Amino acid sequence: MRFDEGYSGKVFIMSHPTHEDAQAIIYGMPMDWTVSFRPGSRFGPNRIREASLGLEEYSPYMDKHLEDVKYFDAGDIPLPFGNPQRSLDMIYDYAKKILDLGKFPLGLGGEHLVSWPILQAVHEKYPDFALIHIDAHADLREEYEGEPLSHSTPVRKTCELIGPENVYSFGIRSGMREEFAYAQDSGMYMAKFEVAEPLKEVLPKLKGRNVYVTIDIDVLDPAFAPGTGTAEAGGITSKELLESIQLIAQSDVHVIGADLVEVAPIYDPTEKTPIAASKFIREILLGWVK
Amino acid sequence: MRFDEGYSGKVFIMSHPTHEDAQAIIYGMPMDWTVSFRPGSRFGPNRIREASLGLEEYSPYMDKHLEDVKYFDAGDIPLPFGNPQRSLDMIYDYAKKILDLGKFPLGLGGEHLVSWPILQAVHEKYPDFALIHIDAHADLREEYEGEPLSHSTPVRKTCELIGPENVYSFGIRSGMREEFAYAQDSGMYMAKFEVAEPLKEVLPKLKGRNVYVTIDIDVLDPAFAPGTGTAEAGGITSKELLESIQLIAQSDVHVIGADLVEVAPIYDPTEKTPIAASKFIREILLGWVK
Amino acid sequence: MRFDEGYSGKVFIMSHPTHEDAQAIIYGMPMDWTVSFRPGSRFGPNRIREASLGLEEYSPYMDKHLEDVKYFDAGDIPLPFGNPQRSLDMIYDYAKKILDLGKFPLGLGGEHLVSWPILQAVHEKYPDFALIHIDAHADLREEYEGEPLSHSTPVRKTCELIGPENVYSFGIRSGMREEFAYAQDSGMYMAKFEVAEPLKEVLPKLKGRNVYVTIDIDVLDPAFAPGTGTAEAGGITSKELLESIQLIAQSDVHVIGADLVEVAPIYDPTEKTPIAASKFIREILLGWVK
Amino acid sequence: MRFDEGYSGKVFIMSHPTHEDAQAIIYGMPMDWTVSFRPGSRFGPNRIREASLGLEEYSPYMDKHLEDVKYFDAGDIPLPFGNPQRSLDMIYDYAKKILDLGKFPLGLGGEHLVSWPILQAVHEKYPDFALIHIDAHADLREEYEGEPLSHSTPVRKTCELIGPENVYSFGIRSGMREEFAYAQDSGMYMAKFEVAEPLKEVLPKLKGRNVYVTIDIDVLDPAFAPGTGTAEAGGITSKELLESIQLIAQSDVHVIGADLVEVAPIYDPTEKTPIAASKFIREILLGWVK
Amino acid sequence: MRFDEGYSGKVFIMSHPTHEDAQAIIYGMPMDWTVSFRPGSRFGPNRIREASLGLEEYSPYMDKHLEDVKYFDAGDIPLPFGNPQRSLDMIYDYAKKILDLGKFPLGLGGEHLVSWPILQAVHEKYPDFALIHIDAHADLREEYEGEPLSHSTPVRKTCELIGPENVYSFGIRSGMREEFAYAQDSGMYMAKFEVAEPLKEVLPKLKGRNVYVTIDIDVLDPAFAPGTGTAEAGGITSKELLESIQLIAQSDVHVIGADLVEVAPIYDPTEKTPIAASKFIREILLGWVK
Amino acid sequence: MRFDEGYSGKVFIMSHPTHEDAQAIIYGMPMDWTVSFRPGSRFGPNRIREASLGLEEYSPYMDKHLEDVKYFDAGDIPLPFGNPQRSLDMIYDYAKKILDLGKFPLGLGGEHLVSWPILQAVHEKYPDFALIHIDAHADLREEYEGEPLSHSTPVRKTCELIGPENVYSFGIRSGMREEFAYAQDSGMYMAKFEVAEPLKEVLPKLKGRNVYVTIDIDVLDPAFAPGTGTAEAGGITSKELLESIQLIAQSDVHVIGADLVEVAPIYDPTEKTPIAASKFIREILLGWVK
Repeated sequence: MRFDEGYSGKVFIMSHPTHEDAQAIIYGMPMDWTVSFRPGSRFGPNRIREASLGLEEYSPYMDKHLEDVKYFDAGDIPLPFGNPQRSLDMIYDYAKKILDLGKFPLGLGGEHLVSWPILQAVHEKYPDFALIHIDAHADLREEYEGEPLSHSTPVRKTCELIGPENVYSFGIRSGMREEFAYAQDSGMYMAKFEVAEPLKEVLPKLKGRNVYVTIDIDVLDPAFAPGTGTAEAGGITSKELLESIQLIAQSDVHVIGADLVEVAPIYDPTEKTPIAASKFIREILLGWVK
Repeated sequence: MRFDEGYSGKVFIMSHPTHEDAQAIIYGMPMDWTVSFRPGSRFGPNRIREASLGLEEYSPYMDKHLEDVKYFDAGDIPLPFGNPQRSLDMIYDYAKKILDLGKFPLGLGGEHLVSWPILQAVHEKYPDFALIHIDAHADLREEYEGEPLSHSTPVRKTCELIGPENVYSFGIRSGMREEFAYAQDSGMYMAKFEVAEPLKEVLPKLKGRNVYVTIDIDVLDPAFAPGTGTAEAGGITSKELLESIQLIAQSDVHVIGADLVEVAPIYDPTEKTPIAASKFIREILLGWVK
Repeated sequence: MRFDEGYSGKVFIMSHPTHEDAQAIIYGMPMDWTVSFRPGSRFGPNRIREASLGLEEYSPYMDKHLEDVKYFDAGDIPLPFGNPQRSLDMIYDYAKKILDLGKFPLGLGGEHLVSWPILQAVHEKYPDFALIHIDAHADLREEYEGEPLSHSTPVRKTCELIGPENVYSFGIRSGMREEFAYAQDSGMYMAKFEVAEPLKEVLPKLKGRNVYVTIDIDVLDPAFAPGTGTAEAGGITSKELLESIQLIAQSDVHVIGADLVEVAPIYDPTEKTPIAASKFIREILLGWVK
Repeated sequence: MRFDEGYSGKVFIMSHPTHEDAQAIIYGMPMDWTVSFRPGSRFGPNRIREASLGLEEYSPYMDKHLEDVKYFDAGDIPLPFGNPQRSLDMIYDYAKKILDLGKFPLGLGGEHLVSWPILQAVHEKYPDFALIHIDAHADLREEYEGEPLSHSTPVRKTCELIGPENVYSFGIRSGMREEFAYAQDSGMYMAKFEVAEPLKEVLPKLKGRNVYVTIDIDVLDPAFAPGTGTAEAGGITSKELLESIQLIAQSDVHVIGADLVEVAPIYDPTEKTPIAASKFIREILLGWVK
Repeated sequence: MRFDEGYSGKVFIMSHPTHEDAQAIIYGMPMDWTVSFRPGSRFGPNRIREASLGLEEYSPYMDKHLEDVKYFDAGDIPLPFGNPQRSLDMIYDYAKKILDLGKFPLGLGGEHLVSWPILQAVHEKYPDFALIHIDAHADLREEYEGEPLSHSTPVRKTCELIGPENVYSFGIRSGMREEFAYAQDSGMYMAKFEVAEPLKEVLPKLKGRNVYVTIDIDVLDPAFAPGTGTAEAGGITSKELLESIQLIAQSDVHVIGADLVEVAPIYDPTEKTPIAASKFIREILLGWVK
Repeated sequence: MRFDEGYSGKVFIMSHPTHEDAQAIIYGMPMDWTVSFRPGSRFGPNRIREASLGLEEYSPYMDKHLEDVKYFDAGDIPLPFGNPQRSLDMIYDYAKKILDLGKFPLGLGGEHLVSWPILQAVHEKYPDFALIHIDAHADLREEYEGEPLSHSTPVRKTCELIGPENVYSFGIRSGMREEFAYAQDSGMYMAKFEVAEPLKEVLPKLKGRNVYVTIDIDVLDPAFAPGTGTAEAGGITSKELLESIQLIAQSDVHVIGADLVEVAPIYDPTEKTPIAASKFIREILLGWVK
C-alpha cells in the first residue's frame, strides 16, 4: 500500500515523513462519481492540503501545537475513475489496514459515500462504536434513483449495520419526508439545524464509548462553505463547527477515527472553503488524536 | 394572459401543470431598469427557479411537503425593456387578475419597485391590509434623483396609500436621514437591524389581519446573499430569515400575498443567493399559502 | 505633501475639497511588498473609496450624517514599489504631519506593517496612548523568516515601544505558540475569538485615555471578508464589528487616530469586502472623529 | 422513450414540439464519470440550450434560417450517475432508435466516450461509413489506467470497428507517443494542428460517402473555449471551426449524424464556450441536416 | 453642461484639465436600459478610463505620443436611469454642443443605441457624412419587440437618415434574414465576417469624405472581448481591430467623430475587455483626431 | 543549495529525483515585489508545475518524449519577501551554480526583473552570448519611477552589459517613446508585433552562437494569457509562440538557458495561462535542451 512506501505529492503541513510511528494517517478519497448534482469533490483533499500551508501550526483553541501529534499524510488513494464499487472496495481495504495498524484514520473526501466502507471497516474492529454525523443532509435514503450506492445513503446503511440507537446526527436541515420519519421512528438521534448545543446534551451520554465522527462540510452555511456539491441555506457558522470539534475533544468519548467530506473547491473562487476545512483538520488532529 | 395558456419555460419544482386549481400563482417580474447602481435582478426569477431543482420537496422547518400545496408557476411577465411605466401597468394588471381569481400571488423580482403596483392591486381587494416589509433599505424616499418611480420609493408610496400605521418594516440598516425621520414621525413601525426578535413582538398585534409580505433579499448580509444590486454589510443570516418566515407562518395573521425581490445572480459566482432564495420560496409556499 | 495641493483621484464620498478645515485626513498606504502569502492589499484603499459611492451618507447606527463631520481624503501616499524601509519612512512623515496639524489620521492599508510607523508618530505626540488592536492574528512575532519588518510584527514592536500593558488585542484566533505565550506573560491584554463582549469590559478601564485603534479586516470571518491576504476561518460577523465601532464611539475613551488594513479586493469577486470596509470607515468618521 | 412523449425542459431554440416530422433529433448525454481530470461536461447540453436563446435564427454563413430545418430537441437521456456501462448501453439504444426512425442524430456531450455507443449504432445501419473526428486529442488509447471504457479510447475503438482507413482525424495536438505511432502505421488519416486546410484536401476523397462527424470542443484554443475538461494550448479559432463546418456542408459527403462533446461550463465564467457551441449546433443543423 | 465646469471623477490618462483648447472631447454614455439580454454596459466608460492607467502614453503603431493630441475627458453624461427617450435627448444635446464647438466627439458606450442621437447631431453639421460601422451585428432592425428605440436599430435608422449608400458595415456575422436582405437590396455596403481586408478596398472610395466611425466591441471574438452584452463566436482578433484603426488613420478620409460601445465589464473577470478598449481609444486619439 | 538536497514540493511532470545527471535544472523565482501594477507572479512557478500534470509527456510538435531529456525541478528559490536586492543576489548565485555545473538553467518567474541576475551569470560564463527576448514590452527603461531595479529595465541593462547589437527583441507592442527610440538608435534588433516571421529572418544570422532566450508570457494576447500582470491587447496566439519555440529548436543556434516569466495565475479564473505556460516549458525541454 502506498503509505508504506512514502509519498512525494502534496501533504498536510507537518506531516511526518513516514507512517511507522504516526498516531494518525491522513488519506484522501478523490471520488465524486455517484454525485447527482455538482461534481468536483474529488479535488477536495488536495486543496485542503494546499490551504494547510496558510495555517499556523499552533491552535489557540486547543492550546496545542501540531508537533505535539504524530501523523502521516499518505496522499490520495488512487481510486479508479467512474467505478464506484471498486473504489469502495479499495477504501475499505485502506481503512482496514490503518485500523489494523492501531492508528487513527483521518479521511478527506470526496463525496459522502466514501464514509460507508470506512464505517464497515470500523465496525469490524469496534463492533460497539457509535457514529456522530454532522451534516446538512440526513443521508438516510435507502437508495437514490435506483442506486443503493449513492452519497445520500451512507447514514441509513450505518443504521442498519450498527443499529439506529448508535447513530447521532447533528445540524440536519434537508432530506425527504421519509428520512425524517425514519429518524423519528427508528430510535436514532437527530438534532435539526443546530450542532453545538445538542452536542452538549449528547456527549455526556456517550461517555467512555468508542465514537467515529463524520463531518460533511455542507453543515456550514454556504456563506462559510460555498465550495460544496449541494449547498443548503440556513447552516451553522465556522465558529460553531470549531466549537463543536472542541466540545468533542474535551468530552469523555474515545474518538477512533474521523472524516471530513464534500469539499468541492471549484464552486468557491474565494477559497474560503478549503481554508476553513484545513483548519478543522488541524483541530481534529490536535483534539481527537490521543 | 400567459398563465391561462400553460407555460413551457423554466418553473419552480413541483409547479402544477395548469393554474386552474392552484392556490398560489408564482410569477416573475424581470425588471431592473430604474436601478441606479448594479442592474441584473431581471435574471433573478429564472435563477431562483433553476436553483429550486436542488431543493428537497419536504421542509423539516414546516414539516410539510410541496405536494401539500397547489401552486402554478406562470413564468415571467413579458415586461417591455426600458419602459418602467408600461411595466408597472402590466404588473398591476397581472396581480389584479391573480387576486380576482382568489389566488395567492407570489412574485419574484426584479427590482423592488415591482412591489408597488402589486400593493396597489392588493389594496383594491383588501383595503384594510397591513404590509410587512423585510429589507436592508428603508425605501421611504419620495423620489430618487427626480424620478418618483424608483426602487427607493415603494414603501413611502405604500405609507401614503394605506396609512403609515399599517406599515411594518424590519431589518432596516440603510437610508437617508429623512427616511428615518419619516419612519419615526409618521407613525409607521420600523425595527432597525433585526427581524426575528421584533417580529415576535409585532405579530401578536397583527392577529387576524390581512397581511402582505415583501422581502428584499438584501436584508441578508452580503455573506449570505452577495448576488443583489445594493449589498449592505451588517445584515441578518439566512437562518434568521428562515426563522422569520416560520414565525409568520405560525402566527395568527392571514398572509394574502408575498414577493421576494432583488436577487441579481451575476454578482454571485457561488450561486448561494439563488440557492437561498429558492429555499425561502419553498418555505413561503409551505407556510403562508393556506 | 500631497494633501496640501488638493488631489484629483478617487476620494471617499463627501470628502471636503481641501484639508484646511478638515478634522480628519483619510490617506491610503498602498503597500503589500512584505506580505508572504497573498499580495493585493495595495489596491485596498481605492476599492474602499469606490465602494463608498454605494453608501448612504446617513448612519442609523450613529444617527449622524457625513455632513456633520469634516474630513479630507488625500488619496494614496505614493510609496516606492518594493522598498519597505523607504515606504515606512514616508508613512511616518505623513502621519506625523497630520498629527502636527492637529487632525485625526484615518489610514487605509495596505498590509498591517503600515501601522507601525503611524504608531511611532502617534507615540511622539501622545506618549501615554493605548492601542486597541482588532485582528484575527496576534502580530506579535519578533521577526518573520529573518525579516524584522513584516506584517506579522507590528503589535510586538508596539508592545516594546509603549509597554505591553498599554496594548489591548481583540478577536485574535491565530498565531504562533510563542505569540500567545508572550501575550499571557507580558502583561498585555488579549481577548481571543471575540471582540464586542470583551470591549464592553475593557472600555471602562480606558476611560479618559488617548487611544489609537487599528483594525485588520481579517478579524471578520472569510464569509464576510474573503478579500484579504490571510483569511482565517472562525471569525466575527460584520454586525459584531459594527457594534464594536459603536461601543468605542459611545465610550469615554478619546480616539486620536485609526486605520483599517489588509483589504485585498482581488480575492473577492463579489466585492463584499470593500463594501463592508467602506461602511466601517463611515462609522469611524461619524463615531470617533470629534 | 422520452422523445416519444414530448419534453418540457430546456430545448434548443426553435425546436419543434414533437419528433414525428423532425428530420433531426437533438439529444443530450450528461455523462462525465470516466473523466480523469476535470469533470463537469454533464452540464454541457443544458448550457448549450440556454445559450441558444441568444442566437439569431438566421445564419449569414449558410444563408439559411432555422425554420428551414425541422428538428426536435428531446432533452437529456436520463443516464445513471456513476454507472458507465449502463450509460453507454442507454446511449446505444437511444441512437439506434433515432437511426431506425430515419432521422439525423445530433448528440450533445458529455465526455467523449459517449460517441462510442453512437458509432456502434451508426455502424449497424451504415456499415461502410467514415468518421470525421475533430479534436485536440488523438483519443487513440487502448485503455486509460486499466479502464477500456474511457474518454481517451473512442477513436481507437472505432478504428477497430470500421477499419483505420475509414477514420479521419483533424486538429490533433496532444496524445501519447503510441497514439501518434498508431496513427502513422495503421493507415488512418491524421491532420495535426490544423482543421480547415486539411479538410479541403480530404473532403473530395470522401465524395458520395456516408460520414459521421464528432467534434470535441477542445479542438478550439482555450482562448475560445476555456470551458472544457482538458484544455490544450495551441488550438484553432472559432472562425476556423465555423469555416470547417461550412466546408463539410458544401462538400459532396453525406453527413448521417454528428455530435459535439466536452463542453464543461463551470470552467468558463464568461460563458463564451456554450455561446460558441450553440452557434456550431445551429450551423450543423443548417448545413448538414438535409 | 458638465464639460464647461471641469470634472473631478475618473478620466482617461493624460486628459487635459479643461476643454477649452482640446481638439477632442471624450464623454461617457452610461445607458443600457433598452438592452434585452445582458445589461451592464453602463459601467463600460469608467472601466475603460480605469484601464487606461495601465497604458503606455506612446503608441508604436502610430509612432505618436498622447501629449501630441489635446483632449478633455468630460466624464459621463448624467443620464436618467430607465428613461430611454430623455437619455437620447440629452446625448443629442451633448454631441451637438461638442460639434458646435468644433471639436471631435469621442463617445464611450453604453449600449449601441447611444450612437443614434450622436449621428443625428453629426448629420446636422455634416449632412454629407458617411458612416463606418464595425460590429458583429447588423443593427438593421426596424424595431425590436415593438420598440423602435432599441440597440438593434441604430444603423437602420441611419440608413434612413443619410441614405443607405453612405453606410458601410464591417465584420457583421449576426442578424435576422431581413437585415441581411436589406443590406443586399438597399445599396448600403456590408462586409461579412472581416474588417481589415474590406476596409482596404473601401477606404480609397471614401477619399476626402467626412466619416463618422462607430465601433461595437463585440466585433471582436469573445476570446478577446468577453465583457459585452451579446457575445458572438467567430469574431476578429484585437490585432485586426488595431490594424483597422490604423488603416483608417492612414487613409484619406476625414474622421469627424467616433464612438466605442457595448463594453460590459461585469462579464469579464479577467478585465481584458476594458484593457483592449482603452488601447483602441488611445489609437483613435492618436490616429483620427487631427 | 536546495537542489543538492532533493526537494519534496511540487515538481514539473517527469522531473528526475536528483539533479546529478540532469541536463537541465528547472527553478522557480517567486518574486513580484517591484511590480507597479498587478502583483501575483510569485505564484506562477507552482501553478505551471501543477498544470503540467495535465500535459501529455509526448510532443507531436517535436516528436519527442519527456523521457528523452533529463531534467530536475529544484523547486522555488526561497527569496526574501519584499527585498529586491537580496532576491537578485540569490538568483545570481543560483544561476551561476547551475551554469558552473554545466547544466541548462530553465527559470520560471516571477516578474521579469528576475532575468537580470541570470543574464549577469550567463555573461560570465558565455561573454559572447546573444539574447532573444520575446515580450509585449520593450523593457528598455533606464529606471522606473526612480528605481533602477524594476521589471521595466532588464533588457536595457542587458544591452549595456553585452552590447545592444547582441540583443534581439520580438513581439514588442508597448513601451515609452524613449524605449523605441533607443531600440532604433542603439543598434539592437527589435521586431514589433510579430514573433515567428521575424525569427525566421534572424535565426540564420545567429547560426552557431550561444543564445539565451527569455519569454514574457504577456507576448501572448490576453485572450490566450489573461493571467499576467500587465496584459496588453493585440498580442500573438499560443500557436505562434509554439511555432516560435519550434523554429528556435530547429535552427542552428546553441540555446544555453531560458526563462519564462510573468505568469500571474490569480487574474485568470480559467487557468488557461498556466496550462499554456506548462506546454511551452515542455516544448523548451524537448527542443532546446541538447
